[in-house]
Amino acid sequence: MDLVYLAKKARLAANHTATADTSTKNLFLQLAGKLLLERADAILEANTNDLEQAKANGISGALLDRLTLTRDRLEGMAESMEAVAALPDPVGTSEGFHTRPTGIRVGRQRIPLGVIGMIYEARPNVTCEAAALCVKSGNVVLLKGGSEAHQSNMILGAVLQDALKDAGLPVDAVQVIPSTERSVVLELIQMDEYVDLVIPRGGEGLIRFVAENARVPVVQHYKGNCHVYVHEDADLMKAHQITVNAKTHRPGVCNAAETLLIDATIADSFLPDVAADLKSLGVEIRGCPDTVKLVEHAVPATDADWDTEFLDLILAVRIVPGLNEALAHIHKHTSLHTEAIITENEAVSSRFIKSVDSSCVMVNASTRFNDGFELGLGAEIGISTTKLHAFGPMGLEELTAKKFVVMGEGHIRA
Amino acid sequence: MDLVYLAKKARLAANHTATADTSTKNLFLQLAGKLLLERADAILEANTNDLEQAKANGISGALLDRLTLTRDRLEGMAESMEAVAALPDPVGTSEGFHTRPTGIRVGRQRIPLGVIGMIYEARPNVTCEAAALCVKSGNVVLLKGGSEAHQSNMILGAVLQDALKDAGLPVDAVQVIPSTERSVVLELIQMDEYVDLVIPRGGEGLIRFVAENARVPVVQHYKGNCHVYVHEDADLMKAHQITVNAKTHRPGVCNAAETLLIDATIADSFLPDVAADLKSLGVEIRGCPDTVKLVEHAVPATDADWDTEFLDLILAVRIVPGLNEALAHIHKHTSLHTEAIITENEAVSSRFIKSVDSSCVMVNASTRFNDGFELGLGAEIGISTTKLHAFGPMGLEELTAKKFVVMGEGHIRA
Repeated sequence: MDLVYLAKKARLAANHTATADTSTKNLFLQLAGKLLLERADAILEANTNDLEQAKANGISGALLDRLTLTRDRLEGMAESMEAVAALPDPVGTSEGFHTRPTGIRVGRQRIPLGVIGMIYEARPNVTCEAAALCVKSGNVVLLKGGSEAHQSNMILGAVLQDALKDAGLPVDAVQVIPSTERSVVLELIQMDEYVDLVIPRGGEGLIRFVAENARVPVVQHYKGNCHVYVHEDADLMKAHQITVNAKTHRPGVCNAAETLLIDATIADSFLPDVAADLKSLGVEIRGCPDTVKLVEHAVPATDADWDTEFLDLILAVRIVPGLNEALAHIHKHTSLHTEAIITENEAVSSRFIKSVDSSCVMVNASTRFNDGFELGLGAEIGISTTKLHAFGPMGLEELTAKKFVVMGEGHIRA
Repeated sequence: MDLVYLAKKARLAANHTATADTSTKNLFLQLAGKLLLERADAILEANTNDLEQAKANGISGALLDRLTLTRDRLEGMAESMEAVAALPDPVGTSEGFHTRPTGIRVGRQRIPLGVIGMIYEARPNVTCEAAALCVKSGNVVLLKGGSEAHQSNMILGAVLQDALKDAGLPVDAVQVIPSTERSVVLELIQMDEYVDLVIPRGGEGLIRFVAENARVPVVQHYKGNCHVYVHEDADLMKAHQITVNAKTHRPGVCNAAETLLIDATIADSFLPDVAADLKSLGVEIRGCPDTVKLVEHAVPATDADWDTEFLDLILAVRIVPGLNEALAHIHKHTSLHTEAIITENEAVSSRFIKSVDSSCVMVNASTRFNDGFELGLGAEIGISTTKLHAFGPMGLEELTAKKFVVMGEGHIRA
């Protein structure tokens, strides 16, 4: 496997996708959606092989579930391709054109970034979603998934390439790297001659490795250690529903809540009730000493719990004296992903919004809304916890850059 | 010199500047402008020491000029501080608030990036400009200038810190790193725990070193190998004026033209005239074989000339068969900075705009307009040749990120 060869082919393909018509890119997405369903048997067979290998390697629970494809999930993936086709094409759109005092007309126009390297773990649907968003935004993508999903990713890559071919786009616009070697990651993230952006999505080890070794620019899609803070002026019914939703709606994803902070003045009236509900939903509570006093089934939290993305039915709970201590806790433990405050007090929510610099700050809403679709981006390739370039959900626009365009009539600088 | 200590102080200061009032930040800028003039004698004395040392080290010509401060230049620097004070503050501005079908209200709000590391060469005025733009956008800055300008930078840093103090802002918001060791650069660009963005401005060696060794995100401000392409449908008078302006208006800066491409059909009628004018202005022409035939004083260009940012009164000139070959030449040699086409043919200029992905694409205007002030950004900390985050002039907005803000009324995900 010669990664430089793949990357050179990607670069050549990028010259074509950059100026491809919207209709051609949409045709690719529609064809890919159809092919996913037509070839469902073969895809599910490859996925079964991955699953058997994973079980033999001792993988279980949430990880195994993320690796699993089903006919239903394939239908969902096909619908996602259609949904991306329906989104507006950002490439070539202009903004801010105006005439300067010198007489030149100035504006900006969106262009693709070029070659994107995507490094991810476990979920094979990411292969299709990343390809869809990259191609729709005029980019090309080199995909390096986890070795557990290798057979699934390879056949999905073949399906995507057939769709590219049928749509009249270069097949090299989407390449699943045919290797399970970890060394490929290092090579990919140092190819600054061929790769314009690396997007790592995965655990702490992967992200750290990429950050320390990359020469290519990186937009990190890192962990979500999301906080829900119930202020003393909260509507406790809203607080109750949001806490339960943020923790249990889908505990294995990055926008699920991991820590609940509660003002001491309302802890008595709020915490026992919500803890009982959480218990009935299978949630383990790891609490500060005050929490353990109030909630019988709570176990004491360790220092590490405040920094842990459990991705599971576990919630760390801390009772705080008030807003200042809640903010201090969040500033110390935030992963810059999502934090929510529940309060009816506008001065307090304003201060919370101003003080918290996470990619998404919520007032009286579940952390689960930090999602490209829910926030109106149509779809997302991940949620960036890097402030540079894109912060929060990264959709089609965030996969482009803006160049300046200047129209003169012989203008020179005086 | 303990860089970690400086960086930790910078991080603490950043918590304050992030939420500082616009009026406080503007007061700092106004006070700094005044102090620059009040302390002119001491600043010029420090600069004289730098200049003498530089001369002793054999530095001359353009480099020496860039290092030189004068009373006039100090006045210009003071005016720049005032100009930044007059610019709108991007921090806290919101955009795109709208209600989603779920009922949540979603928008984005601008926040500072945090701690910025600025690495630059020679020009001491960059010390003041970078500090002004960073603080106005709520950031803090660690400044590592060239060793040639060390004494000048140190006294400018002291002036800026006095202005911060008088304005009621933390003095650590602007820190000139008190070391001329090259090893400081390596340490700075690997401090991903304390530094959010590194902006290198300088020569190829510096940029390559930073790109290969940084762990902190980098926005490169790299060379400008800018092209002017005179198409056969050009208004030759405009082409003449733009060529002369782009090359000679200020040859030592990154948006000066370095290569002129001319359609063969008009070479006879265009080139001898413009070459004569350029010669009278002291410009050396390094031409392709066809150019050398047409222009008596032209010397043959080497392969390296097409990739060289001369930053001097030298112009590479090539006669091409037409648009396709001009685009191929640009694609091969571009530094993604600025390219201009001179043509009256709209189909041709449209194709040029679509095909060229440099940070600024010009039609019938001098490359010299790729400048933050000229393009309407008010000021710039440099011109980015990196597509990620900021592409082209980087002004106040480009020194910020956008977080999502969500307002709900107890909304949960279904």
